[in-house]
Parts: sequence; structure tokens; C-alpha cells
Amino acid sequence: MYKFKGRDILSIKDFSKEEILYILKLASKFEKKVNPNLLKGKIVATLFYEPSTRTHQSFSSAAQRLGAGVIGFDNINVTSIKKGESFQDTLRIMANLSDVIVIRHPNIGSADLAAETVSIPVINAGDGPNNHPSQTLLDLYTIQKVFKRLDNLKVALVGDMKHYRTFHGQILGLSKFLNNKIYGICPKRLEMPVEFKNKNYQDVVINMKDLDKTLADLKPDIVSLGRIPKEYIKGNSRKFEFRITMETVKKLPSNTIIMHPLPRIDELDIGVDEYPNAIYFQQAKNGLYIREALLALVL
Amino acid sequence: MYKFKGRDILSIKDFSKEEILYILKLASKFEKKVNPNLLKGKIVATLFYEPSTRTHQSFSSAAQRLGAGVIGFDNINVTSIKKGESFQDTLRIMANLSDVIVIRHPNIGSADLAAETVSIPVINAGDGPNNHPSQTLLDLYTIQKVFKRLDNLKVALVGDMKHYRTFHGQILGLSKFLNNKIYGICPKRLEMPVEFKNKNYQDVVINMKDLDKTLADLKPDIVSLGRIPKEYIKGNSRKFEFRITMETVKKLPSNTIIMHPLPRIDELDIGVDEYPNAIYFQQAKNGLYIREALLALVL
Amino acid sequence: MYKFKGRDILSIKDFSKEEILYILKLASKFEKKVNPNLLKGKIVATLFYEPSTRTHQSFSSAAQRLGAGVIGFDNINVTSIKKGESFQDTLRIMANLSDVIVIRHPNIGSADLAAETVSIPVINAGDGPNNHPSQTLLDLYTIQKVFKRLDNLKVALVGDMKHYRTFHGQILGLSKFLNNKIYGICPKRLEMPVEFKNKNYQDVVINMKDLDKTLADLKPDIVSLGRIPKEYIKGNSRKFEFRITMETVKKLPSNTIIMHPLPRIDELDIGVDEYPNAIYFQQAKNGLYIREALLALVL
Repeated sequence: MYKFKGRDILSIKDFSKEEILYILKLASKFEKKVNPNLLKGKIVATLFYEPSTRTHQSFSSAAQRLGAGVIGFDNINVTSIKKGESFQDTLRIMANLSDVIVIRHPNIGSADLAAETVSIPVINAGDGPNNHPSQTLLDLYTIQKVFKRLDNLKVALVGDMKHYRTFHGQILGLSKFLNNKIYGICPKRLEMPVEFKNKNYQDVVINMKDLDKTLADLKPDIVSLGRIPKEYIKGNSRKFEFRITMETVKKLPSNTIIMHPLPRIDELDIGVDEYPNAIYFQQAKNGLYIREALLALVL
Repeated sequence: MYKFKGRDILSIKDFSKEEILYILKLASKFEKKVNPNLLKGKIVATLFYEPSTRTHQSFSSAAQRLGAGVIGFDNINVTSIKKGESFQDTLRIMANLSDVIVIRHPNIGSADLAAETVSIPVINAGDGPNNHPSQTLLDLYTIQKVFKRLDNLKVALVGDMKHYRTFHGQILGLSKFLNNKIYGICPKRLEMPVEFKNKNYQDVVINMKDLDKTLADLKPDIVSLGRIPKEYIKGNSRKFEFRITMETVKKLPSNTIIMHPLPRIDELDIGVDEYPNAIYFQQAKNGLYIREALLALVL
Repeated sequence: MYKFKGRDILSIKDFSKEEILYILKLASKFEKKVNPNLLKGKIVATLFYEPSTRTHQSFSSAAQRLGAGVIGFDNINVTSIKKGESFQDTLRIMANLSDVIVIRHPNIGSADLAAETVSIPVINAGDGPNNHPSQTLLDLYTIQKVFKRLDNLKVALVGDMKHYRTFHGQILGLSKFLNNKIYGICPKRLEMPVEFKNKNYQDVVINMKDLDKTLADLKPDIVSLGRIPKEYIKGNSRKFEFRITMETVKKLPSNTIIMHPLPRIDELDIGVDEYPNAIYFQQAKNGLYIREALLALVL
């Protein structure tokens, strides 16, 4: 129906609403049933130029659950890169040893460059602040599982709108569907860059001390959290700028869900884990099924 | 018969004599026959918070020999831990990506905490000086293979009774069986802590220079060696305190076996490798079958 | 026909012309057809005492494509070696956990020592400047694919004859076949050591500025390039001594192929990648089939 074989997965932008729904449906099938022979004899190359436990292990688990082998690295010191090899040469070599490349790199556009360089499919597992389509897809899959829909949702993004890739992907993904309203709650200097804004999105710039009240007034279906990276916190001596606790959650509608791509630090109190709609660990598990679906589709 | 599915393997204490014999019997089956499809589609997460070639590689080999995939780390620098993620968050995430967790951690009780945190089975691969049940089981398996019994044995533990986990496990394991006599041969300051002593065990505090004569007089069935970690050797300028050589072995009964969990340094001379009852390399191999049995049982 | 099961693969010297052709034929079969069940339940141990993306990932991919599991390390810091374990103890342990050992080590003779130490087969993946038989076999496989023969070839090796293992292997490999003429083009101080010279080989010592003309005059079938390691480049301030560009290639016969084991740095301009007979990336891919063949043969 949809052509996925051999395709690169670079950005959520490249997928139509129908294609997204198709991927989610396949992920749902993988959630129900393990297919340990589907990718037997295939090799997934995971090229992580910066560490990411969650994403790397998730792709590795997904590949092996489908019977594929895994090669690659998450520690650039142990590779030929040390010997001065170029990014593109490494890619070409790894492409010759594998059937699909999963790449994480701190530079914007690195996955696109990878896709231009090699003929096998490339999956972008994060290129700096830019794209991370499997994260966006697992977010959508998680929302769909809870609400049985991907439209008519009120979503509060809370944190660093300026740099946080996960938020950029959520705006893009949710805007493919009808009538979603997205609010970016952030301090003044971390507003959403204009290139990620659209008609569904609205900045809500606040003093983060007022966060609990702002959320209570907004009554969102979804609170999507993310770290404010340490390097963007004003002044070294200041404490972290906000924290979601059970106090925050108690003031929200009872069916509001709390999402977080993890890892978390101070912005999400572990007390919230007890809250039935705190679904961030389930979210991580959903990533497994989405990544199985993506690997299966492109191979 | 015995309920193992979903169970945590935290300490040899948790197993009855009958359960131990059952595990050894299954290990023996795995030694005779490879089962490359038994755990197909399953994922084993190996979380090594401190390096351990032997144990990590052994679990990884065991898992893959049964057809399972392996994820995890043995280098905490490359994980999200660097970003400040909590121990329990890492565990919850890894549990969502896998079917069983194998954990090695320097802190006592870390495996118990892991088991409380996640719902999938946890196998303790060493928590500081405390427990390392697969090591104890492979020691018992090795003894059983040689002597065709696990009772009526005279065992000389030689080394650091105070800190050495392997000895603590051997006392616990051998005391499940009848009539075993265990002697802990050590220098004064490295005596067995009271919590690991029992009626089967007796300290034999000696000047380690008298080791050869002490062992010759004792006539043990088993000499179980272990390192005295460098940090416990008195004075930086002093040489290692004892060394088992062929001279030692020649004075022992001809059927006495020499065990060592490896790696060895100065305490066990490579000359002893020629001795037919030097079974420490066989011991390492036996670990593979024990770990296959444990993974198969809990999954 | 030929006895390979259980055999060590230490040096190209150990193989007859007929055995080499047999290995290449099997590699060709693996190129045509994936065999994901051939080595099911087997474990390949990869012991990389120095980093090598290409070779390590290639063996890992080859093993997994045949259904085998992979254990090992490419970072000696995370192993028991840190605790002071001897090279031979590590080998004996790893041999007990696996079915074949693939070893890379900076010291000459380390693979031979490994083969003497353990009873399972050992594949030498490079011991310093000495041997790297799978590299030589993939070079021969690549040449055979292009020219449909392994004799009557004129080959120009360009670079560091003194230290570069790949060249030493190519001389040995090509000299098994009839009528090959090999020219080692190098600066004065990097001439071929006498122990690698034979009747097929001839030094062509030049000022590397004259490289283009020397190659044009020679009209070789094959130009085989290799790095001059930085530590052998005279003077820190001097630029790299030579560079093959499209200018070089244009002066060569139209069917001359360009080989390079990669990684490359300055000695091979990326402009050459467009040249149809620039086959170094194909060469890397061929390594996969050769390594599949070697693993299958010894197991």
C-alpha cells in the first residue's frame, strides 16, 4: 500500500498522516506478537556519535527481537574516526557491512548527509536539535493508545522550546492531525524558534514559578515535559527552574497524562511515578514497537 | 516441579537444596546439547556498573547460545547515567526493553533494589562483597562433576575471607548439603566476618608463609583460591602474601582439586596449570551452562 | 576436500594456492546467498586489543549473518586485563565461552601464541606489521572478481613498504599464483624489509613527487594504496608525502583498478571515488564474504 522498503526515515515531515497511521498500526501488531525470524540474516548498523542509552538500546533490542544482528558503536574513541577517517567514509564502509543504518549525531543535517552518501536506508535517531522521527512516532503511538485518537487534543509542552528536539517533533507530528492545540510553556529566553511554529502552536511565556497554576488553568489532555539542559539554566548557583510534582498533578484534570522522553533529572519528581496517568515508562516501551515497525518497513 | 519462571536470582540463600540440584541437572543438559532456538525473540539486558570480563561475556555467550539477543553496557560512561539519570530510572527503562536483567554493581543490595524496582526477573551478577549466585552455582556444578557428590567434602578456602564474595557464596552453598567441613585459611586481619560463619565453617588463621604445610596437614578434597585484593595487602613495598605452586600441590592428596574463579594474579602460579586436577578453566566453562540454565529457568 | 574444520587461520603463508581458491569460491557462494542458520548456536569471540572499526565490525557482521552470536571487546580498559590478568589466561577463558577466537593485537606473533594456548580455532585479524590473512584473502577475492584471474598481473603497491601489513600480505598472496609482477613504490627510507621480498617483487624507490609519472610509465593492472603512518612522515611540519587524485588516475590505463584497505586520509583524494575502477568500497564489502567463508570453514 505505502512504499517503505528502502526508504530513509529522516524527519516526521516526510510522512503523510496516512503513512503515520500505518506505521502506528504495524507497531501495534509488533506489540501483540514477537516475530523472531522476520529479519533473520539482516544486519542493523547503529552509529551513535553521541551517547544515548535509551535510543541505542531500544533500536538494538528492536533489531534483535526481529532476528537481526547488530553492529556499530556508541563510543567514537574506539573507531577508525580516531585515525582521521571522514564521516562519509565511515558511513560507506558501515553500509557495506549492513542492511540499514541507524544514526545519531550532534550536528543538524548529519542524517540527511548520511542518506545521500549510502544506498541502504538510513534512520535518523537524532541530529542535534533537529529531528528524531522514531521519538515523535512513539509519542504519537503513546497518545493514540491512551486517547484512541490523535486529533482534538490540548497539549502543554513544558520546558525548553528553543532547543528541545522532542517538542519540535511533537508539534510537527500533532499538526498532521485535526484540531490539536499545542501550548509551549517556557521562560522568556527559551521560546520556540519561528521555524518550528505553526497555526496549531502558541507560546505561553511565564515565570516558571507559576507553572502549577498555568497548567491548572489550561486543563490540557497531555503534559509533555522535557529537561531544560543545564547549559541553559541561568547562573550556576541557581537551582533548576521548575519541577512537576504530585502537587502539580493534583490540580490537573484526572485524565491528563504526563509524558517525558526520559532521562529526567530535577524537572519531574519521582513522586509522580505513582500517578496512574504518568506514562513515561510505558512510552519508552512503546519506542520498542515503533522501532521494530520502522526496521521491518524499510527492510 | 519447581517454580522458576519470573523469579529473581539474587542470592544462593534463596534456594533450597532441591532447587540447587535441579538447576545443576538442567545445566548438565545444556552442557550436552545446544538449544539455539529456546530463547529466540527474547532480550537479555546486561547492566554492568563495574567491569567483569568473565561474568559479562559468560552471560552474553549463554544468552546468545540459546538464541536470545543481548543489550546493555559495561562502561557507565557511555550511558545516560552521565546525564544524571537515577539508578532506578535506568533499570525501569532497561526493563521495558528486555525480558530479564543481569546486573553487576559495586554496592551491596543493589540487585535487591533492582528486583524491587522492575517486574521482569533480575539475576544478581555480583553486588560488591555480598552475593553472586551464578558463581556459587557454577562452583557447586564443578565440584559435583568431579566428586559425583556435594556432601562429605573437606574444603580449604585460601585467601581473603573478609571481603571475598566467592568464599561467602561457597560457604552458603556447601552448607546446604550434609557433612561438609570448610576451613578458611587466611592471615589474621582478613578473617571471615561473623555474618558469613556457620557450623560448617572454621577459621584457620596462619602466617601465610606456612600455607604449604597447613594445606598438606589438612588434606582437603578441594582447595578454593581467591585473590587478596591489592588494597588489602599490608604495605605497598611488600610482595604478595602467598602463592600456590606445584610445590604446594605435590604435598596434597593426589585427588585434591584446585579451584579459582579467575582472574588470577600472583596467588596461583601458572606452573599449576599442568596439574590434572587444576580445574579452574573448566570451572569458567561450567559457568556458561549454569547461566544458560538460569536464563532458561526464569524466562 | 580440504581440511579446514578446527584449523587456525594465522597467515596467508599457511595456505596452498588450491586452498586459497577454495576459500574464494566459498566466499562467492556467500555473496550470492545469505545463510542465517549455518552457525546457529555458535559463538564467535572477537578480541581486539587495538581498535579497528573495519575489521571488527566486518567479523561481527559476518558472524551474525550466519546466525552466530558474538562476544568480545574492542576496548581493553573494560576487561579483566585491567585487573592484571595475563594474555593467555584471558584467551583460555574466552575460548571456554566461545567456538572460535578472532584476535587483533599490536604484537607480532600474538595470534600464533593464542593458537598455541587454546584448542578452538584462532583467526588472526592482524598482529602488528605481520599477518592479516582475511585482508589478503579479500584483496585476492576483489582482484579475481575484476580480472577473472589471479595470475599474469602487474601490481603497483604505493606507500610504506617497510611497515604496512597489507602490502606484505599482498606480496605473499599474489606470489602463490603465476607470473605476477609486483612493484613497491616508496620513498627511500620506507623500502620493503628483506624478509618480505621475493622473486616477484621489486622495489621502485622514488621521490614521491614523481608518483604520477612513475605510475603512468609502469601501466599497472592494479594500484594498491596504503597510508604512510604519520609517525613515519619526516618532520612534523611537512605535508603528507603523496596523494593519488583524478590527475593520477587519468594517466593510467583505463582498466587499472585502485585498491585501498581503508581508512584513508590524505593519500587518496575523494575525487577518485567517481572513477569506475575505484573499488575500495567494494573491497570492504568483499571482506564480509571472505570472513563468512573463514568462519564457516573452521567451525
